[in-house]
Amino acid sequence: MVLKLHGLSVSISTARVVACLHEKSVDFELVPVDLFACENKQPEFLAKNPFGKVPVLEDDDITLFESRAITAYVAEKFKETGHDLIRHENLNEAALVKVWTEVESKQYNPAIDPIIFEFFAKPVVGMEPDQTVIDASLEKLKKVLDVYEARLSNKKFLAGDFYSLADLHHFPGTFYFMKTPWSSLVNDRPHVKAWWEEISAKPASKKVAEGMNFGEV
Amino acid sequence: MVLKLHGLSVSISTARVVACLHEKSVDFELVPVDLFACENKQPEFLAKNPFGKVPVLEDDDITLFESRAITAYVAEKFKETGHDLIRHENLNEAALVKVWTEVESKQYNPAIDPIIFEFFAKPVVGMEPDQTVIDASLEKLKKVLDVYEARLSNKKFLAGDFYSLADLHHFPGTFYFMKTPWSSLVNDRPHVKAWWEEISAKPASKKVAEGMNFGEV
Ligand SMILES: N[C@@H](CCC(=O)N[C@@H](CS)C(=O)NCC(=O)O)C(=O)O
Ligand SMILES: N[C@@H](CCC(=O)N[C@@H](CS)C(=O)NCC(=O)O)C(=O)O
Repeated sequence: MVLKLHGLSVSISTARVVACLHEKSVDFELVPVDLFACENKQPEFLAKNPFGKVPVLEDDDITLFESRAITAYVAEKFKETGHDLIRHENLNEAALVKVWTEVESKQYNPAIDPIIFEFFAKPVVGMEPDQTVIDASLEKLKKVLDVYEARLSNKKFLAGDFYSLADLHHFPGTFYFMKTPWSSLVNDRPHVKAWWEEISAKPASKKVAEGMNFGEV
Repeated sequence: MVLKLHGLSVSISTARVVACLHEKSVDFELVPVDLFACENKQPEFLAKNPFGKVPVLEDDDITLFESRAITAYVAEKFKETGHDLIRHENLNEAALVKVWTEVESKQYNPAIDPIIFEFFAKPVVGMEPDQTVIDASLEKLKKVLDVYEARLSNKKFLAGDFYSLADLHHFPGTFYFMKTPWSSLVNDRPHVKAWWEEISAKPASKKVAEGMNFGEV
């Protein structure tokens, strides 16, 4: 059975998984979920994810949700195919991948998410972005990016001198962020900028980006 | 070298790691960090964790931070010792451990954390708890616990019929929550209650609890 990914290509969480599947050259079918019609709160969808959120992955006899759990599963299942995203042969490197994956989840994403919500999502439903929220998040993001700048001044990628799940998880959120008026936060930090250019030039990233036109349609 | 854990036994994130170390019967030294004196924002500590947060683990030649990354490292390194917390021999079970670990991190913890902060932490520094924040968080928590109640009605633990890192990560936050006036949210849900009783009766949990006297001292 080909993997089934329930989600939306414009959604950051779905795109995180899509990036991983492309990186591993794994075939999958994207099954669109109509969030506007609340399809994700219907019994059929809730049976797959009781929290009613996309993405959901179905593979053979297993159903998974939470984007970062799904990517970890895909990276583990296909660890011998393509680039090793979890450094499964080296305990210390694998641990650093986990550390920086948590950093994305606990520090970076909480700073960048509200900016994207205010700037892209609110106007779509006719609401005004709240600049106070944006400003507070930009302040948080600057502090996180200062840490990244220092880290990336002596490592090529976040977990070490190898591209990993920790970097990949940053792609979709940063992709949207770079279309906001505040992209200089990345561009003004030379090592963060070089890291971002490297990540976003990957063929898998370019393929995901094709579906990420939120706010444009 | 014996593992060095920098942190505070009363801190939820530190206690998450301590619970895992006890579960694996791993010897470690707890090195206290004086958060009130901002020791965690001094260069020596920032060299270990640039985000200036506890816990930090030092083991041989590696330094790790982010509690959930540290527990995953400990569970992996000592996978053959004691109870297997990550189900490393079964890809599907391991994936479900990851899913429910993410649920704790993304759904449960964001609901329970503000309640504990308002109820325990604010009074310590002479501030009034904000009941609006508590009420909103209790509403969120109820929805999460409804999902848990359904899940635990046909599985003994969150990821399946086995105790795992996903359950363990819930211990410290829930331990404090059960000392608030809202413990009925757990006790009124029979399967959640039974699960909590099972988790909190574990010798490792009892040992961690001894150090968790925040708000009492
Ligand atoms: N932590 C989750 C977040 C998933 C999430 O928030 N998905 C959004 C779309 S990006 C969604 O389904 N929203 C609909 C809703 O919550 O009702 C993950 O990483 O998968
Ligand atoms: N996501 C982190 C959170 C760590 C955290 O917030 N630690 C608190 C104590 S529980 C801390 O160090 N606070 C001091 C500060 O942030 O300045 C983890 O799980 O380790």
